[in-house]
Amino acid sequence: MKSRVLMALAASVLFLGLPAQVSSGQSAEQADSARAAIIAVLDMQRQAWNRGDVVAFMESYWNSPEVTFAGSSGITRGWQPVMERYRKNYPDQNTMGHLDFSDLEVRSLGKNAALVLGRWHLKRDSGELGGIFTLVFQQFPNGWRIIHDHTSLDAKAP
Amino acid sequence: MKSRVLMALAASVLFLGLPAQVSSGQSAEQADSARAAIIAVLDMQRQAWNRGDVVAFMESYWNSPEVTFAGSSGITRGWQPVMERYRKNYPDQNTMGHLDFSDLEVRSLGKNAALVLGRWHLKRDSGELGGIFTLVFQQFPNGWRIIHDHTSLDAKAP
Repeated sequence: MKSRVLMALAASVLFLGLPAQVSSGQSAEQADSARAAIIAVLDMQRQAWNRGDVVAFMESYWNSPEVTFAGSSGITRGWQPVMERYRKNYPDQNTMGHLDFSDLEVRSLGKNAALVLGRWHLKRDSGELGGIFTLVFQQFPNGWRIIHDHTSLDAKAP
Repeated sequence: MKSRVLMALAASVLFLGLPAQVSSGQSAEQADSARAAIIAVLDMQRQAWNRGDVVAFMESYWNSPEVTFAGSSGITRGWQPVMERYRKNYPDQNTMGHLDFSDLEVRSLGKNAALVLGRWHLKRDSGELGGIFTLVFQQFPNGWRIIHDHTSLDAKAP
């Protein structure tokens, strides 16, 4: 089941060619492997959210005081404050709702960094939310982690 | 005068240490030089905006159909569509107003890529605007260029 979800996600991912400057030192196999690892991290994150597990959701972020989240209320800095922001804005499973990602696009920024764009969508009884995100991933010894997240809410219809 | 502006900008920049994985292959001198080049590109961009020159402003962006701008109306893809979006939203020097950047933070993502966070502020007669941005820069033979821009407007006070 998990592999089916991953394959469906992988099929929806647009992988852009690497500009020559950045791809140097990275083979196509390495790029494919990085992309697959990043998609797996995002899928793990989505599943954690959908079972209301904010701590597991936060495992996708670099556990550092330097990780950053940019949102409508400015920049939040540090793993703990980013988690507290999620807990404050989504205090229970009802407000967390059901999360989906779409239009994922992974762009390599070299061997150990990647840019991911995508759309997020939250279904919940109290009203749906959605928007776009920019994620910067970096490869650490324990895997790929988000070092910066810029998430926007769709502009509301007037 | 220009060098004073650059020095003032440089003084306001917070340069975070590079995580070991990403800094490999890059000396402190290379990182300093990259940071200075990126700040100069942003300063050139700000000056171009403030004299109403959108084409010169756009020189900071990678001139490619793959450059992306993420804003409140979704993702715009390609150099020409990004410029058209600016021209539509800011049709003349009055709507363009006076642009300033602050809280610039440059983070290396390896030898040829960098993440820049900052705040933007637009003064104009018709009302002030401001918000935060995430820029991903990449180094090309002709210099550092923005390959992705995610710009948010500050949430309005209720």
